[in-house]
Amino acid sequence: MGSESILFQEIHQQPDVVERFAQEEQGRVKELAARIQEADIRQVVVAARGTSDNAARYAQYLLGANNRLPVMLTTPSLFTLYQQPPLFAPDTLVLGISQSGQSPDVVSVLAEGRRQGCVTAAITNSTGSPLAEQADHLVSLGAGEERSIAATKTYTAQLYAVGLLSAHLAEDADGVAILEKTSDLMRQTLSMNIEVERLAERYRYVRNCVVVGRGFNYSTAFEIALKIKELTYTLAEPYSTADFLHGPLSLIEPAFPVFVVAPTGVLMPDLERFVRQLRKMDAELLCVSNDPTILNLGRTQFPFPSAPEWLSPLLAIIPGQLFALFLASARDFDPDRPRTIKKVTETL
Amino acid sequence: MGSESILFQEIHQQPDVVERFAQEEQGRVKELAARIQEADIRQVVVAARGTSDNAARYAQYLLGANNRLPVMLTTPSLFTLYQQPPLFAPDTLVLGISQSGQSPDVVSVLAEGRRQGCVTAAITNSTGSPLAEQADHLVSLGAGEERSIAATKTYTAQLYAVGLLSAHLAEDADGVAILEKTSDLMRQTLSMNIEVERLAERYRYVRNCVVVGRGFNYSTAFEIALKIKELTYTLAEPYSTADFLHGPLSLIEPAFPVFVVAPTGVLMPDLERFVRQLRKMDAELLCVSNDPTILNLGRTQFPFPSAPEWLSPLLAIIPGQLFALFLASARDFDPDRPRTIKKVTETL
Repeated sequence: MGSESILFQEIHQQPDVVERFAQEEQGRVKELAARIQEADIRQVVVAARGTSDNAARYAQYLLGANNRLPVMLTTPSLFTLYQQPPLFAPDTLVLGISQSGQSPDVVSVLAEGRRQGCVTAAITNSTGSPLAEQADHLVSLGAGEERSIAATKTYTAQLYAVGLLSAHLAEDADGVAILEKTSDLMRQTLSMNIEVERLAERYRYVRNCVVVGRGFNYSTAFEIALKIKELTYTLAEPYSTADFLHGPLSLIEPAFPVFVVAPTGVLMPDLERFVRQLRKMDAELLCVSNDPTILNLGRTQFPFPSAPEWLSPLLAIIPGQLFALFLASARDFDPDRPRTIKKVTETL
Repeated sequence: MGSESILFQEIHQQPDVVERFAQEEQGRVKELAARIQEADIRQVVVAARGTSDNAARYAQYLLGANNRLPVMLTTPSLFTLYQQPPLFAPDTLVLGISQSGQSPDVVSVLAEGRRQGCVTAAITNSTGSPLAEQADHLVSLGAGEERSIAATKTYTAQLYAVGLLSAHLAEDADGVAILEKTSDLMRQTLSMNIEVERLAERYRYVRNCVVVGRGFNYSTAFEIALKIKELTYTLAEPYSTADFLHGPLSLIEPAFPVFVVAPTGVLMPDLERFVRQLRKMDAELLCVSNDPTILNLGRTQFPFPSAPEWLSPLLAIIPGQLFALFLASARDFDPDRPRTIKKVTETL
């Protein structure tokens, strides 16, 4: 079932994909970083949908924290349906992130950015796509065809591209060096999580859950939730710990499943307080962490190896992908062909 | 039960609150609009949490479409936990929106904006709050004390403040005039929805649902979902129609409840296609609309009177508030005191 799926293969291809990216695409990323510096870019506008929007969320935190760039996730309907796009300051980079490069709304944002005279860039797995055509700078994911409908290897390749862009922009040689070791950390994460098939059984009859993360791993919370929804038809809602305390906390009752993505780093005290609060409320905690204390507070544990916090989204997503895959097969759903949805979704 | 609650009273105070705002606060809003023009502001950064964040979402679309201003919803953790805030271009307005003006993370964003030399503004119900202290321009909601934990009248007052700011910025006298009639449209909406108490009964045993909206009413989808979660402990996830088609569509099975917020306007063809697609999938549709065709496609109907689309979020939220209130009382929950959450949530 699950382990014979294309999705299982694609999840396991991820270390090779980022390894190849580091070898083949670094020049293009460096060129984009140089252009951002030369053009004195002061803010970045990102257009993306679905899984790619979660990579955009990572970019918002990473380029914000490490490069001090304000990153705005844009509102495509202003460009398409309303035809009243915002006017960008000339020192704006407009960046499209898309696996297929096909969605007309994402393409429209880049086209409008170009019309306004902004620098445009695309991160995509499809170099011949309409999105690629609108980009002054093209970063190709080179992940190979993604055959499963749920995106996995293109997502981590997008994160990797953003990570490398940030490191080159900051002229951070240590960052580039640690990125070059990421494929090994991803392989370790895969081997630390061979139990996920067994662990997923327990959640066969779950109807809904929430996934909580913050900062760099806000993206991970969104992406785990999206995989669970796409593959298992379970309502899984993503939150930052802070937003969760402003209202949705009232959802929690005993046995309510809460995924917490909790890497070591500056967020740890905040996350640990949150986990302990939820434990007191008898929530069912599923902890994705590289911290033994946090893992031990969880009823179910998804470990990953230690890494700088900014890099952890490339690792923490892997058990989430495996969990969604094996929960789908525990329910006898086909992980490669979720009902109703298509690989390329064309929205306006 | 529900109709004897403080929440019921506060929902019904909304027309008076915006009427008072139009009479008393218009000068402050005009001053802020004049400052935005004088300072040649090219982008707006908004900090907010919870319900106020949904007002921020409205600002993102309204200031984008009507004033062509890029609006970025910011990431408070970069300012607080990471202490690596993005560096804003000098032509940036930093705007805080908060009922209480107390949450340290939202205050931090404004304080940092001021430190960087940006123009700062606050929209709050608490003029003596730490947020107000950090603002060059203060817009007071003047909604009176909001005693119920779930925010309602401060939310519509926030939307109204944003609407008036947009109209004054655009020097749109017609916009200002229609805003002055909004209180009557809100009263009509209340009287068109006296059936909500009865309609909510049907959903007594719903465990989860989604709320879909787009453009100006993307905010409404988020805010309806938040009220449902806060008051009824039902998982309600907000989506734009476009994002929903990129994955979560696979959640839909017969009888799955889907709220659709569908005002007449440019989105209508897109929304009607979406509603028909969900009907074919035998979803249970709850339609919030001023369009008879859309309402008739819904199993449950929440009408509001016709108004320009950009104004409709002030009306469309009202049946959502009433629905959450009466679903709570159908479940014998106290709508004034949802379990676990507090009125002022202080997050970092």
